[in-house]
Formats: sequence, C-alpha cells, structure tokens
Amino acid sequence: MEKREQLYEGKAKKVFRTDDPELLIVDYKDDATAFNGEKKGTIMGKGVVNNRMTNHVFAKLEEAGVPTHLVKELSDRETLVKKVSIVPLEVIVRNVAAGSFSKRMGVAEGTQLLCPILEFSYKNDDLGDPFINDDYALALGLATQEEIDTIKAYTRKVNEFLKAYFLSAGMKLIDFKIEFGKTSDGTIILADEISPDTCRLWDVNTNEKLDKDRFRRDMGNVEEAYNEVFERLGLA
Amino acid sequence: MEKREQLYEGKAKKVFRTDDPELLIVDYKDDATAFNGEKKGTIMGKGVVNNRMTNHVFAKLEEAGVPTHLVKELSDRETLVKKVSIVPLEVIVRNVAAGSFSKRMGVAEGTQLLCPILEFSYKNDDLGDPFINDDYALALGLATQEEIDTIKAYTRKVNEFLKAYFLSAGMKLIDFKIEFGKTSDGTIILADEISPDTCRLWDVNTNEKLDKDRFRRDMGNVEEAYNEVFERLGLA
Repeated sequence: MEKREQLYEGKAKKVFRTDDPELLIVDYKDDATAFNGEKKGTIMGKGVVNNRMTNHVFAKLEEAGVPTHLVKELSDRETLVKKVSIVPLEVIVRNVAAGSFSKRMGVAEGTQLLCPILEFSYKNDDLGDPFINDDYALALGLATQEEIDTIKAYTRKVNEFLKAYFLSAGMKLIDFKIEFGKTSDGTIILADEISPDTCRLWDVNTNEKLDKDRFRRDMGNVEEAYNEVFERLGLA
Repeated sequence: MEKREQLYEGKAKKVFRTDDPELLIVDYKDDATAFNGEKKGTIMGKGVVNNRMTNHVFAKLEEAGVPTHLVKELSDRETLVKKVSIVPLEVIVRNVAAGSFSKRMGVAEGTQLLCPILEFSYKNDDLGDPFINDDYALALGLATQEEIDTIKAYTRKVNEFLKAYFLSAGMKLIDFKIEFGKTSDGTIILADEISPDTCRLWDVNTNEKLDKDRFRRDMGNVEEAYNEVFERLGLA
C-alpha cells in the first residue's frame, strides 16, 4: 500500500490518499482542540494512544457485529481505513449527565440517567454543530430514515459493548461521540475514532476524569490520563 | 358554574378555580411577552381573539379525533376547561423554516422543509425551555414512551387539520407550538391555546406575517394582524 498526497488535515488527524481509490491512511496528531476550536493545545503522545485504542476497539466491535472503516494498523499513528463519505451527524450517547448536557438541562454532573440518551448534532463547524432531532435530519436531507435506523441500532450496540469493555478496566463510560460514513456502495459503517478525545471515562471508584475534560477544564495530568486509559486497557 | 379564586397568573392567561374540582376557568389577557419574558407589551383585543379562536379550533379538533380541554366558552375572554396537569413538553411543529430554527440551522426563513419537523422543548423557564429529543424526555422522566407516542400522533393530526384550515382562509401555517395535559385519570388531552400567539401564519400570496412575530420584531400593525386572522376565519 503506497501512501500518497495529503487529502485533508482535521483538528486531530491528517488523511492521505493511497494507490487504492477505496482506501485512505489516517495519521493521528497530538493536537488537541476544544469548544469548537476556540481552545488549542498539544497532548504529547495522544496520537499514538488514540490510534491504537481506536483500532483495538473497532476490531472488537467488528466481532460484535458493528462494521467499521478499519482495515489495518500501519504504525503507531497510521491506520489504513476504508474511504467513506461521512454522514453529517455527530452521534452522541449519554449514560450519565455531564458537560454541556448538565449545563443546558440543570442536571448535576454525575447524575445517572433513567435510560441512555442517543442524540444527533448536525456536523457543521460554521453553525457550531447544533443539536438536532431525527426529524431535522430528515427535513434537511442529512440522512434517510433507513440510515438513521441503522445508525441508531449500531450505536446502541457500541454503547453496550463499550460500557462493559471500560468497566472491565475500572472505568465508567459517561458519554461518547461517534461518527458514521457511507462506503461507495452506500453501506453505513462506523468511522472516525473512539478514544479519550471522544469518550468521557471516569474511574469507577474515585470518579477521577480520565479523558479530554482534563484538557478542556485545565485540570492538569492530561498525558497521564491518556496513558492511564491506555495501560488499563492493556494496550501500552 | 361558580368562578372562585385565582389559582395562577401566566404570561397570557389567568386561571381560576371553580366549584367543580375537575374544571377551571381560563381568562385570556391582552399582555404579550417574547424572548422568554424579556420583551413585554400589550396587544389590545388579543385576549378576545385568542380565546375565541382557540375554542373554535379546539371544537373542530375534537371532531377530528383529538381530545381537548375545552368544555364551554363562557364569555369573550373566559372559557371553562378540564383541569389537567400539564406535560412539561412544548410540542413544536415546523412546516417551513422560520425564527430560531432558521438562525440555528442556517436555513433561510421561508424555506419549505422536506417533511414537517416535530420537536420538543422542556417547559422550564429557568432553563429557557431547552430543545430536547425523545430520549431526553424519557431519561429525565418528563413523559413515558406511551405518552410521547400519543402526543406525537395527536400533534400530527393537529398539523394536518390546521394546515388545511388556515389555507382555506388564505394563510400558510409555518410553525406552531402546542401543549398537552393529563386529566386526573391520566388521559392525554390538548390544552393551552392555538392562536396567533402560538402559530406563525403568513398570507398565502404575499407572505405577510399575521402573527406574534409582528410584536417580537417591532413590525407594527400587531392588533391589525390578529384581527385580520380573526376575520379571515369568520370569527369576528
């Protein structure tokens, strides 16, 4: 597989073309951003943690029946993935109240929800990724009902898998964000990443935050938290 | 039916106890507020228009299979209604992009949506009635799945009825907000009001606004717009 020119540089990853039009290489950076890009920084070693953790989780999700874009890990930071067109929905699952949800809804951070919340944001930087519901996605042509149903079914499977997976490593899955893409034949598959950038993970005993909130909230020990997750999952 | 002490004074209505514990009297005021109470004013005669229009529409909706709180119009501004506990959801339907939806989603006001949007806000003045989805309502215990299904089915009927009703009077129904309540036996019925305070209505030919946006946006001729709707519907 030959790595060719860079197609795109995002906030946390670069994407490169390959000699196969259906395959891309993603290259995970140490750059960190928060609050729709307003806060910027570096988390040393983050790219390695997020690349290897995402690949490990995606491989397990494939076994659990959730198709993903993963093809092959190429190096510490580089992975070969299937080319997809990203569905313009950020898919968020909340098991416990935290972050913007707690502020908007007046529910204290750490409150267990009566059932998991699945919600969509419209992926649009200019609009600040606004929260929408299913009808918005249909009415604005962002996805079809069938695509929404598929995405929701996969997302519920991802949540059930991840809750148990992190719990076995002493961590509570508070909430997370995933994204889906469509392959050239229209198949919906899980894309993007699953990492401490995209999940809120709290120590099951102390509620210590082991995720990007340490960066967002200037809590210190950011690298240590990413490495702690990496080690607990047996990936270091 | 004896009118007893005032129970509650809202932004646009007062509510009185009666000698029947299952019945209340609502008394429509001319007071107008917007932007979560930040803007205040008076629209002369609004109480009469909204009372009579709501009662007329609710009677027709009952015939169409949507149960409502309407019992009997008592005077120009007073109506006898069934006592309910209000479900803490504002139910909004959008047929055409306008208002806050247009701003948040970057869609020009007047854009026809591919399908109607039904959305919920959590009725909570302190939080500014935040937009939520079905899962939020379930996860926060605001309503059961069965109640949500009932509310959505009635709301779609209300939209179909109202679109045709207003169109027959030369007006396009852009969007509207309704509320539901539960009677003492748990039955879900339509409550609150349907009026130019709670509907966006545009002249079908000129797109002239015939609703509360004239007050919100300081467009003038506010009373004239309410009276125009009243006359077009044959209620004056």
